[in-house]
Amino acid sequence: MTTREATDVAAVRRVIEDLAAAIYQKDADAAVALYDEDIVAFDLAPPLAIDAPVLHDPAHIQSWFDTWKGPIESTPHRIEVRVGGDIAYAFGLRHMTGTKNDGTKTDLWFRATACLVRRDGRWKIAHMHNSVPFAMDGSRLALLDLTP
Amino acid sequence: MTTREATDVAAVRRVIEDLAAAIYQKDADAAVALYDEDIVAFDLAPPLAIDAPVLHDPAHIQSWFDTWKGPIESTPHRIEVRVGGDIAYAFGLRHMTGTKNDGTKTDLWFRATACLVRRDGRWKIAHMHNSVPFAMDGSRLALLDLTP
Repeated sequence: MTTREATDVAAVRRVIEDLAAAIYQKDADAAVALYDEDIVAFDLAPPLAIDAPVLHDPAHIQSWFDTWKGPIESTPHRIEVRVGGDIAYAFGLRHMTGTKNDGTKTDLWFRATACLVRRDGRWKIAHMHNSVPFAMDGSRLALLDLTP
Repeated sequence: MTTREATDVAAVRRVIEDLAAAIYQKDADAAVALYDEDIVAFDLAPPLAIDAPVLHDPAHIQSWFDTWKGPIESTPHRIEVRVGGDIAYAFGLRHMTGTKNDGTKTDLWFRATACLVRRDGRWKIAHMHNSVPFAMDGSRLALLDLTP
């Protein structure tokens, strides 16, 4: 890896960490500031795809933040990053823990893929895909208790 | 977009179409030939992550092909592609239809993200992420009947 590539990879890793920090602090504006103008997300919750106008409204993520008591941990785990020109991708697992308003404890490992684009020298998230697999035994249950 | 970029984007789209064709024809070797040596997949079925040695064994995907009667359609729908240097990413929906061995009809829309890398001039899939969202109503059900 060249020095230039190593610098780019470090900058992309920082975006992933900044997103985790924004979620931890439940700072909607800080999260939205990381999104590219054309961002499309495939998230844990429906619908199939969430488009840019919804994602760029801080109220969208804030309404989810507000369902949690205290901070939301979503720690990145073994994230692979590759950069080429002005695009990049990063994928790995995230471990989300915290307490919902009704007192339920959440402890969920999920898969996270992020696709990024460099705009005016700054890396922005152009696509996010977060998910868990589902059981193929006919139960149709999402598998919320898997661990790496 | 430059001519070079347009050529690269077309080549990446061809890989996505070639994967759909390999699945349609249930051709395990043709599917595996599209994978990079270090591929990691986050798939509809568990586990959380599937590593290269499993994915490169044609028997892995063949055992899934063998649960279907006749061809498996997995038509790409509104795929966005971006290329930078020797990496690329593509994301969109796929519509999977077909008949399982027990006669059950499958008709499933899922989200698909692919991350690619160019090796010796050929685009290879370095990461695939396929999923559906799950219900946030406490039922923990994977949402298998969503449509775009």
